[in-house]
Amino acid sequence: MTESTTGTVDPKILSKVKSFSGYVEAKLGFRNHWYPVGFTADFAEGEPEKRKILGLDLLFKRIDGKVFAIRDRCVHRGVPLSTKPECWTKDTITCWYHGFTYRFDTGKLVNVLSMPNSRLIGQTGVTTYPVQEMKGVVFVFIGDTDKPVPPLSHDVPPQFLEPDLEIRGKHREIKSNWRTGVENGWDSIHLYLHRDAAIVKQERLLLPLAMPAKDYSVDDFYKIIDEPEGPKGIRTTKGEFVAPIFDGVVEGQVVVRGADDGTEKIPDFSSVWLPGIVVIDPWPARTMVQMEWYVPVDEKTHVYFQTIGKRVKNDDDRAQWERDFKEKWLPLALDGFNEDDIWARIELEKAYQHDTMWIDEQLAEPDVMVMRWRQIAHKHNRGIQRPEHLR
Amino acid sequence: MTESTTGTVDPKILSKVKSFSGYVEAKLGFRNHWYPVGFTADFAEGEPEKRKILGLDLLFKRIDGKVFAIRDRCVHRGVPLSTKPECWTKDTITCWYHGFTYRFDTGKLVNVLSMPNSRLIGQTGVTTYPVQEMKGVVFVFIGDTDKPVPPLSHDVPPQFLEPDLEIRGKHREIKSNWRTGVENGWDSIHLYLHRDAAIVKQERLLLPLAMPAKDYSVDDFYKIIDEPEGPKGIRTTKGEFVAPIFDGVVEGQVVVRGADDGTEKIPDFSSVWLPGIVVIDPWPARTMVQMEWYVPVDEKTHVYFQTIGKRVKNDDDRAQWERDFKEKWLPLALDGFNEDDIWARIELEKAYQHDTMWIDEQLAEPDVMVMRWRQIAHKHNRGIQRPEHLR
Amino acid sequence: MTESTTGTVDPKILSKVKSFSGYVEAKLGFRNHWYPVGFTADFAEGEPEKRKILGLDLLFKRIDGKVFAIRDRCVHRGVPLSTKPECWTKDTITCWYHGFTYRFDTGKLVNVLSMPNSRLIGQTGVTTYPVQEMKGVVFVFIGDTDKPVPPLSHDVPPQFLEPDLEIRGKHREIKSNWRTGVENGWDSIHLYLHRDAAIVKQERLLLPLAMPAKDYSVDDFYKIIDEPEGPKGIRTTKGEFVAPIFDGVVEGQVVVRGADDGTEKIPDFSSVWLPGIVVIDPWPARTMVQMEWYVPVDEKTHVYFQTIGKRVKNDDDRAQWERDFKEKWLPLALDGFNEDDIWARIELEKAYQHDTMWIDEQLAEPDVMVMRWRQIAHKHNRGIQRPEHLR
Repeated sequence: MTESTTGTVDPKILSKVKSFSGYVEAKLGFRNHWYPVGFTADFAEGEPEKRKILGLDLLFKRIDGKVFAIRDRCVHRGVPLSTKPECWTKDTITCWYHGFTYRFDTGKLVNVLSMPNSRLIGQTGVTTYPVQEMKGVVFVFIGDTDKPVPPLSHDVPPQFLEPDLEIRGKHREIKSNWRTGVENGWDSIHLYLHRDAAIVKQERLLLPLAMPAKDYSVDDFYKIIDEPEGPKGIRTTKGEFVAPIFDGVVEGQVVVRGADDGTEKIPDFSSVWLPGIVVIDPWPARTMVQMEWYVPVDEKTHVYFQTIGKRVKNDDDRAQWERDFKEKWLPLALDGFNEDDIWARIELEKAYQHDTMWIDEQLAEPDVMVMRWRQIAHKHNRGIQRPEHLR
Repeated sequence: MTESTTGTVDPKILSKVKSFSGYVEAKLGFRNHWYPVGFTADFAEGEPEKRKILGLDLLFKRIDGKVFAIRDRCVHRGVPLSTKPECWTKDTITCWYHGFTYRFDTGKLVNVLSMPNSRLIGQTGVTTYPVQEMKGVVFVFIGDTDKPVPPLSHDVPPQFLEPDLEIRGKHREIKSNWRTGVENGWDSIHLYLHRDAAIVKQERLLLPLAMPAKDYSVDDFYKIIDEPEGPKGIRTTKGEFVAPIFDGVVEGQVVVRGADDGTEKIPDFSSVWLPGIVVIDPWPARTMVQMEWYVPVDEKTHVYFQTIGKRVKNDDDRAQWERDFKEKWLPLALDGFNEDDIWARIELEKAYQHDTMWIDEQLAEPDVMVMRWRQIAHKHNRGIQRPEHLR
Repeated sequence: MTESTTGTVDPKILSKVKSFSGYVEAKLGFRNHWYPVGFTADFAEGEPEKRKILGLDLLFKRIDGKVFAIRDRCVHRGVPLSTKPECWTKDTITCWYHGFTYRFDTGKLVNVLSMPNSRLIGQTGVTTYPVQEMKGVVFVFIGDTDKPVPPLSHDVPPQFLEPDLEIRGKHREIKSNWRTGVENGWDSIHLYLHRDAAIVKQERLLLPLAMPAKDYSVDDFYKIIDEPEGPKGIRTTKGEFVAPIFDGVVEGQVVVRGADDGTEKIPDFSSVWLPGIVVIDPWPARTMVQMEWYVPVDEKTHVYFQTIGKRVKNDDDRAQWERDFKEKWLPLALDGFNEDDIWARIELEKAYQHDTMWIDEQLAEPDVMVMRWRQIAHKHNRGIQRPEHLR
């Protein structure tokens, strides 16, 4: 019940979670990382588009094909530019209030329409944010302006970079902290929740109730990836270390069973990555990989950014995948199967909205994976987004 | 305006209300007491039923006739069990998330469906709460597990225990702190508020505008009941000490009159009891007694638990009372007459939501009764429910 | 993001705005000033009328033609009298709860209907507030009872007192702090926002995009008015010091133009006054003056109290003005033109709801006028309304 609406956590709590205190503090996410904000089609040429991310209001605009991002707040009196966006020229946006005009590429204040000779012109401006577009996904980098910007490839899962992988997806806001997304997605025993999903029968999946490791006293069932030049994360190792559970037993009685009559045994691996990405591979079909981002919006909201990648060889493949995605995999997997993940996160938020939950939780053996994720996030994040960054 | 959303009260305020500081602190009610949570019919065999009480989420289930109560929060990740209650066996509930399974009788974790060999099994569990059913009312005890549980008879008004008394009633949530309920119900001069109630004319009640004592310099108009082995409370004494007010006078002019042409002179007595019960006897008719609980839900909500008891001799009496209650006394008394009490509490909450009101109020002579109640509650409560009890 | 819901501002912020710290603190407005609460017709004889102002709930009643104001809170248990106002006599109001009865003129507790002999009678009462009616506007004075009440003429703009001025207007609640109203109204370059208002074309106004001063290095474009016996404020000086901007230029290109083909060149002057009034003169037509109050309701709300005054010579003039106001100037000016001011304030509130905005804003040269207003308000206000005044 000790709550905080200002983003700070009671030091007494932090002292009890020393190995992942930075993760507990990161209610607003991690700074100096790349985050997806939409698909290519979301950013039409010349159309301002707003997003809230890590607590910051941003305004995007595609100009001559390239997407730019600026802080959506006039430096003068702090009003949002997006309330009534006035793009008198292609490259600029003018504040509706007093005519303060900024370039999208540099952020510089280039004109003040109501005060043409103001000494502020050229001397100030709005913050700009690096934007990169890859495989049809638009990413923004929220970071400290005095630090070098790491390559986007360090903040995406390795699969994402595969040349033939064609990405489709969907994004929406969910009313829970971003960490509920990562922890639910990465959790190796929450499969229990999904047992009645339509995809299981329809695709004849061989799906146990859970996939714990055979032996939690050894650490061979996962691998930490923390090469200096690359993404930081954890992935599970070969299936031989897993002891799938098919029988759900209550007081000696089998009360529920996983899908053991299926023929399709997926996934093989899962992985989790900074700044908050889960990969299920292959999934939702053997030829596909699902990669999900949980993008911090504010302390109580994240964007669930779901993608499925499929290897395609040519334009026919691509056109077929486009149809299949829309007609089948979007409703069956991203909406159907993951619907359960969404409400699970909202329930999880009821507990973790109270910071005390980080010390009151009673973790089971498989949660060592969740714990490793927290520790890696604590160790390898490039900065914690704090309330002062919202000024 | 000094407010607190974390349940604590400014010590400067507490120092000015020393004789009842524990009552001022008890925003969430008193621990180690019995509270009604519903009627027998509310708890059908095998049907999980949730309630929030003293800030805690509880889950009830009747098993083989007996009602059990557990904390509605999985020990693992803190999610509510009631979101999707899975009772694979009669005696247990399984968490929808990872299959943590608890017995309703002991609270013990007996299985984890997704991790059958977890070392947590048998070593942990959810808190259980004693439940008792009496006269068709289901009571739960919210208390410290290391203390003996007092008998239910110490937390109900003496009338409730009368063998022939047949109870009927109604309960609903009201958006005000539980103390507004007790203080409004016990207050001997708030009758002014009820002067236009339909019951007055219809039942030809002799109802004054208020019933203050004849002389507030002596203490003979009430009696404190605090025997070690029994309920703690106060009751008014004989009517001879009361000076009923029929004339409402403003600046020398009679502007409103109580019902002095009635023939039915009730009630004879009223009383107030820990943990928050008011009794009007007889009421709403000479053969009945009204007993009301104001059950803390959270700091801003209580359940108004209204009962009317009538002495019955046989099954015919009982059937007649059942009909009369539904057709007449429920609409006329519990809904009609008490409707005014409900909105009065909500108005009172506007003042007492600010802790400063406890020191800014200007009490009149009859409020000595309210003050005695506060002091008895301060002295005889068995513990204050505090935010830390919600962890 | 450092916010305060209790009305206090972080001292670190106050230390950076020393020349106007009292203004930054005045979230609830300034005490010991007169504020308009409605028009004559809003207060019908004998009809209780409630208003919230400076965080206080007040109850007004016109008795024999004169309007009185009392605190809308019974001293006994703090409930609002207005929930169910019982005026048993013309001069009094009786609390619906226990019959505590107060006179509107003195505030004194004169009777307690449920306890006729209470020692409280004559010894306590509700706070009364001076009320004055002038030119069809009802004003109330919120102040310290131990200080003399300054004349109303010290808290209205000089034009308001002109004998022939006939006032019409409108008032409504806006969801932003009162200071967003004053600063937006007084700001000499926000005209940019209004360029598409219907009135500009319809009345053939010669309206630039902004009206900055020719030279901000000298202070001849405004005049501070702070005579001891009179209202405190600032007014702009002659038009010769103004350099109207008609061309809106972005990166060398004229992208938008003010209305330079108009024939009606108004206004001549504007001014701002304590406790929060802006005057545009003449406006919305040469024969009129617009005077607007921004009356604090609570920290996040103000009443936008708009008036237009027109000089009339006789009853025919007055009747014509009455018709013109309703049919033309109300929809065209107070609703149409000022609609943009209203949403601008709501946007401004998004920034200034965070106290840090007072130190993060980047003011332009014309904002020296806004700054002077803040400093005058800081220097000449008669007291800051603080949370403790709401007890």
